[in-house]
Amino acid sequence: MRLAGCVVIIDGMKDMLGRGNVISADEALRLLLKGLPEKLPDKIRIPIEHALGMICAEEISSSEDLPHFARSTVDGYAVMAEDTFGASEAMPAYMTLSNEIFMGEKPEIVLSRGRVCKIPTGGMLPAGADSVVMLEYVQNVDETMIEVLRPVVPGENVIQPGEDVRKEEIVIPVGRKIRPQDIGACAGIGITELTVYKRLRASIISSGDEIVPAGALPVMGQVRDINSYVLAAMLSETGAVPLRKGIFRDDYRVLLAAIESSLDDSDLIILSGGTSVGTKDMIAKIIDDIGDPGILFHGVSLKPGKPVIGGIMGKVPVFGLPGHPAAVSVCFDVFIRPVVARLSGLRERFGGHPVNVIKARLAKNVSSSQGREEHIRVIIEEREDGLWAIPVLGKSGLIATLVKADGTFIIPLHINGVEAGEVVEVRLF
Amino acid sequence: MRLAGCVVIIDGMKDMLGRGNVISADEALRLLLKGLPEKLPDKIRIPIEHALGMICAEEISSSEDLPHFARSTVDGYAVMAEDTFGASEAMPAYMTLSNEIFMGEKPEIVLSRGRVCKIPTGGMLPAGADSVVMLEYVQNVDETMIEVLRPVVPGENVIQPGEDVRKEEIVIPVGRKIRPQDIGACAGIGITELTVYKRLRASIISSGDEIVPAGALPVMGQVRDINSYVLAAMLSETGAVPLRKGIFRDDYRVLLAAIESSLDDSDLIILSGGTSVGTKDMIAKIIDDIGDPGILFHGVSLKPGKPVIGGIMGKVPVFGLPGHPAAVSVCFDVFIRPVVARLSGLRERFGGHPVNVIKARLAKNVSSSQGREEHIRVIIEEREDGLWAIPVLGKSGLIATLVKADGTFIIPLHINGVEAGEVVEVRLF
Repeated sequence: MRLAGCVVIIDGMKDMLGRGNVISADEALRLLLKGLPEKLPDKIRIPIEHALGMICAEEISSSEDLPHFARSTVDGYAVMAEDTFGASEAMPAYMTLSNEIFMGEKPEIVLSRGRVCKIPTGGMLPAGADSVVMLEYVQNVDETMIEVLRPVVPGENVIQPGEDVRKEEIVIPVGRKIRPQDIGACAGIGITELTVYKRLRASIISSGDEIVPAGALPVMGQVRDINSYVLAAMLSETGAVPLRKGIFRDDYRVLLAAIESSLDDSDLIILSGGTSVGTKDMIAKIIDDIGDPGILFHGVSLKPGKPVIGGIMGKVPVFGLPGHPAAVSVCFDVFIRPVVARLSGLRERFGGHPVNVIKARLAKNVSSSQGREEHIRVIIEEREDGLWAIPVLGKSGLIATLVKADGTFIIPLHINGVEAGEVVEVRLF
Repeated sequence: MRLAGCVVIIDGMKDMLGRGNVISADEALRLLLKGLPEKLPDKIRIPIEHALGMICAEEISSSEDLPHFARSTVDGYAVMAEDTFGASEAMPAYMTLSNEIFMGEKPEIVLSRGRVCKIPTGGMLPAGADSVVMLEYVQNVDETMIEVLRPVVPGENVIQPGEDVRKEEIVIPVGRKIRPQDIGACAGIGITELTVYKRLRASIISSGDEIVPAGALPVMGQVRDINSYVLAAMLSETGAVPLRKGIFRDDYRVLLAAIESSLDDSDLIILSGGTSVGTKDMIAKIIDDIGDPGILFHGVSLKPGKPVIGGIMGKVPVFGLPGHPAAVSVCFDVFIRPVVARLSGLRERFGGHPVNVIKARLAKNVSSSQGREEHIRVIIEEREDGLWAIPVLGKSGLIATLVKADGTFIIPLHINGVEAGEVVEVRLF
């Protein structure tokens, strides 16, 4: 597929295929998301203890009321509220003590009028009682009698049957990323296994005739593989399983074979490396040759990350990332993270509002070209007057700038720059 | 140890041990952190692929320059910058083409004046060249000659040896929580294994005669264990390993034995359950009987979470948490999370500034008692005019309120409440 609907043309520069324009990051992401298959991941059943961070694939509802009996929320005395009406310190209500109630036991007695039972927090109310007077508002007269100093209303200090979770109430919706309290709620209603979506599998195919493995000793002209490690860890953070397929030569047939074999075991393919125009063009050609629809965009008005390639091959999205580590990180945040979220079955909360963000004042002016979304790496420094964001200088080809930085802020497409002192939203790594 | 330095006395209410006052959450945390052992966790050596989120236990520095040769950052022509001085579209510099440079190979030639080599992004500069002219600013005259249309300065479009990481430069400090780019940097300098701190082990001891396992069918008066699941998952989120020790009877000797046996295998002990005064007092007594120093605080001006107990037994901090799920969650955030961070060897960034926070306008008035730090659970709703925080009503004993909520905001100790429309910072779950 050749690109339709290019939106932002920047300063007359040609894209890498010489098509004369590149599109905005928003438009590129829109094309990608529109082209993704509707298919959800396979499901798997797991114990709730292992469900943290997984995406729920079934609607969880309760087969019973929680709690299934009326419980006291305080330490005190179970009463019929009516017996306490009008009670005050000046005019206490005198009540007769019945048997104490013990935790975890069903009270044997039926409370008759004018009588109370001592009850612990969490204890079951006896029949005949509808409320609990807190210990603080009771005085002991003798071993069989107490004074109630304040009235209670019916239901006071009591959790009613089904008040926490009603029978058949939906507790966890499909698409929720499971949090600790979700696991707790399952335990509470007796659900010890959950059906979740399987983790996505993402292949990372490194290419570049200059790339050697991290454990190798590079000779002159060679460098060690950095990006496949960064990508694998970023994928792990999203909950996906990274499959590092290895380092391949920049050769049409070699890379075609690597990509085709990954189509079988991957929900997503990321090509890393290929920094030069010739290699980029070859990767674009491979994606378009596999097709259906093939390339969706090649070149985006994004810095760093401009030469990024995005496409879909059948049901599998594919990315050709620039070789610079900073560009890899930005392209991951802008394109791969939302694609992984969509494919994983996650139903997004807060309209995808970015989290893990802190505000800081920019320590120096940063300029940006209009017509380009720019991601600026910053160090966060805590000074006496609050947090400051200090731009990290250095080329995007350096991994060290990413290591020094604490996060990035974005200068949007149509903004020229940000002045020192302005507050920016820094998305932390 | 009996409590010294109580700071905030709230409305004449006695704490659970009848000592007549409770302390602020800040003061309670300060006592805990002050009493923690200086000891760091044991170390372990792991492959960098497994290091994501672990705390680095060694200072990582580079034994070599990265890159170890001058590399081009663009596709273009390697030149001696001086040869391009004064070049313009009107008056191009004519240069003679030498051999092309290939990726991953050391160029054989030494570039002489007036000559250029075609070089790909990432390619190694030949001897004699000090800069690279971008492809865009060159026109081919014939097979042996090009026109350079713009001058470059020495070093332009080149990454110098050691520019990314200098030999002996510190790349990762001790105490850093390893991020994807940190792993990438290690790979880049040939480090494939890291020494990290072992994960902390935290015992969760559930007590309560009414508590049955999640898989059991509770009879009248009994409820299923919720809190040990919530706590285990929250611990996992912090990077600690939860050890769910099981459900024990509310009996001095039983709980003493459970705690003592956990002192051997745990960096941290959490007692969950024991909602009633009698049980709380018993747990406090056990902690104080084990001692050294024993109880640090019992009762904090915090809602929910007031009856929380904190102490230290030798080198092991111990928490007695209230039984209500919402209180468990709040006490975890306020006390356990910072203690885990400190014990794990993490060096905190941004002065512990909370992250994962979004701002939203409060949808209705919320009142709070002065002299009590209150944590309000809210649902985040996206409306046309932005994000709104809707307080979740319901008793803190309900797990469902935690499941419905997206996060909490805090009404500090000395504030009476927050009015509808005010912006609050919501810490997301």
